[in-house]
Amino acid sequence: MKAMLVIADGLGGRPTDWNGATCLEQAETPHMDRLAREGALGLMDPIAPGVRPGSDTSHLSIFGYDPAEVYTGRGAFEALGIGLNVRGGDVCFRANFATVEDTGGDLIVRDRRAGRLAEGQELAEALQELTLNDGDVSFTFRASTEHRGALVLRGPGLSAEVTDSDPHEEGKPVAVCKPQRESDEARRTAELVNAFSRRAYELLRDHPVNRARRQQGKPEGNVLLLRGAAVMPHLDAVTEQYRIQGSCIAGGALYKGVAGAAGLTVLDVPGVTGDLKTDLSAKAQAAERALESSQLVFVHIKGTDNAAHDGEAEEKSRFIERIDKEFFGGLADRLSRGDVVLCFSGDHSTPPAVGEHTADPVPALFWGAPIRRDACEKFDEIAAGAGGLGRFSGRLVPQLLGYCDLGGKFGA
Amino acid sequence: MKAMLVIADGLGGRPTDWNGATCLEQAETPHMDRLAREGALGLMDPIAPGVRPGSDTSHLSIFGYDPAEVYTGRGAFEALGIGLNVRGGDVCFRANFATVEDTGGDLIVRDRRAGRLAEGQELAEALQELTLNDGDVSFTFRASTEHRGALVLRGPGLSAEVTDSDPHEEGKPVAVCKPQRESDEARRTAELVNAFSRRAYELLRDHPVNRARRQQGKPEGNVLLLRGAAVMPHLDAVTEQYRIQGSCIAGGALYKGVAGAAGLTVLDVPGVTGDLKTDLSAKAQAAERALESSQLVFVHIKGTDNAAHDGEAEEKSRFIERIDKEFFGGLADRLSRGDVVLCFSGDHSTPPAVGEHTADPVPALFWGAPIRRDACEKFDEIAAGAGGLGRFSGRLVPQLLGYCDLGGKFGA
Repeated sequence: MKAMLVIADGLGGRPTDWNGATCLEQAETPHMDRLAREGALGLMDPIAPGVRPGSDTSHLSIFGYDPAEVYTGRGAFEALGIGLNVRGGDVCFRANFATVEDTGGDLIVRDRRAGRLAEGQELAEALQELTLNDGDVSFTFRASTEHRGALVLRGPGLSAEVTDSDPHEEGKPVAVCKPQRESDEARRTAELVNAFSRRAYELLRDHPVNRARRQQGKPEGNVLLLRGAAVMPHLDAVTEQYRIQGSCIAGGALYKGVAGAAGLTVLDVPGVTGDLKTDLSAKAQAAERALESSQLVFVHIKGTDNAAHDGEAEEKSRFIERIDKEFFGGLADRLSRGDVVLCFSGDHSTPPAVGEHTADPVPALFWGAPIRRDACEKFDEIAAGAGGLGRFSGRLVPQLLGYCDLGGKFGA
Repeated sequence: MKAMLVIADGLGGRPTDWNGATCLEQAETPHMDRLAREGALGLMDPIAPGVRPGSDTSHLSIFGYDPAEVYTGRGAFEALGIGLNVRGGDVCFRANFATVEDTGGDLIVRDRRAGRLAEGQELAEALQELTLNDGDVSFTFRASTEHRGALVLRGPGLSAEVTDSDPHEEGKPVAVCKPQRESDEARRTAELVNAFSRRAYELLRDHPVNRARRQQGKPEGNVLLLRGAAVMPHLDAVTEQYRIQGSCIAGGALYKGVAGAAGLTVLDVPGVTGDLKTDLSAKAQAAERALESSQLVFVHIKGTDNAAHDGEAEEKSRFIERIDKEFFGGLADRLSRGDVVLCFSGDHSTPPAVGEHTADPVPALFWGAPIRRDACEKFDEIAAGAGGLGRFSGRLVPQLLGYCDLGGKFGA
């Protein structure tokens, strides 16, 4: 028995979304409805009733981790989310390119966002693998959108208990990073961060990108401001807990990152883009192939959330219809209830009427021979409220693997 | 979007209450039933399945706090419950007026309840604001019913880790309060408590009330016995977590106290008595007015629980009908589903057949535009068991505010 988890990001909605119904209710989903008739539904609170989940915390919870215990802050998961290779124990910062003026001693921040520059990737190249302190600590920076990026420190004896170099206000000097607590690790980390910041300024100030911006009268990206230090937690890999192989098929870096941290192998599938243009048939085919070598296949589909964040109810509904047809269409016929337990759900609700993650519970569908059937005739939020699986918080992966009779007993 | 939470104390019941049905099933509740048809129902375990809740712990849970984390013992919440102004960090004791005999050195307890005297309020006046230790610690005592009361210590450097002065047995001397752990705070608190106890004895022994009781041959209330030291937790105010204004309309001191600790403003509404005689129309009008300035309005109605504790099923049922007519009657017509999310539930079940709080889950009704409707046609425990909101533990306030899109995300 193998497990497949399919997450449509931001799947849940509200009756206020589109003519008194949710996008899922409005969509024509014959394949999902057939799976619902053959399986059972329930309602999932991604973290707990009334908690508005982030994508990072909800995925941790879905994989069976307690976010209250392992979520160390945005820094670490933002770094994962922009595709940095982050391991347990790494110290991560959120980072901005900013414009400073050298007043002959102090570096005064003039623009905390360097005019929202577009050349972050080019500047980032100058900072690659800036390794300090005789090589036992590495610094890896990656740019994301506009002036944003993330910095990861890896090495022994580091601490996230250090202050920001971002003064959080223009007209002030770049702050000196300081230990927040008296410890050798925090002191050393602060010293390394300050040395990195100086070295980054030296590498950036006369970078061709900045020379060009100077000539055009644009604010330069001549410094990196760091904030929100957080240590990446050591996650007890799901694949090791259950002694299985796992595969992840996702476009977005955050989902790959969390799945990777949970021990899954992240597959590279051509056509998978992490947005509304993604190739859903390619995802279905890759998921089916991955079942050959994995006991757990995790598929993440992002487009539902993109449409919902943009407030586009009809687009969200059409994309759900595409998931039904292009992802589940062929796949649902080819999967055998005796071989695979399937779960289809979302990581949270994103009602287009709100355009943001909300705390509303998310419909979840379980299908496969071990699942006790209920009376649900179709798949949507209302049907799920009457579903035989009731209401529960996160833990879709442990439930799936439980149905597959995998994992040890807690107790004897 | 604003939130209104209406709690009918001890609302839930059992089929053993009245001719095979609960009081809520027996009651004619056309307005609640209409709200149920337009909204959705669920079952709430006030704390967790199988836990018999107190009114204090259940309200903490309903407001989103974890009682296992913040509930420090009866002392603190009893003090709140009799209307003492208690702040986070205050050290509270349960207190009894008792009768002691001075044997020329020891004070021997002869009656731990001072004959269940009726003059507690008069004696309490003699103890008001008995401030010791150069004024940095204040002692506030308040009498409740018969011989009972509560004492609150406020000031720096205090600890609740001290033993009782109540020997818990007659014929023994008043116990010396001692530190339970070696700490400056516990030692200092014990010394202050012992000094207070001596000073209270001096103030009480020749009090006119006791002189009169002596002449009548009644046991005097000449000492205060203290037990169950507990520190009032610092609660992270709901109003600050969500950056909102909140209002509380309640008769009972405990409910005002918990709501106040959660950051709500306690409104003084004429006619609101906290028992079966309360003016329910005045409550409804005050609640509607409070919505003008508050994003969260909490209304507590106590009479259901009073009738149930007295084992009066018919009286409980009639009071539920009064809530339906006098509270929801006009209000439910005037509230707009697009402006307000309403939740009606109880803080626990009190089946008249039992006459005490039980662990049975409580029906909960949510109503408003963001709520996904279910198939429920009326409001009672049986309908709620088939409701679209499933079963969950406490957290009514976070859920309500979640539907109002208030509060930050946990994660990103």
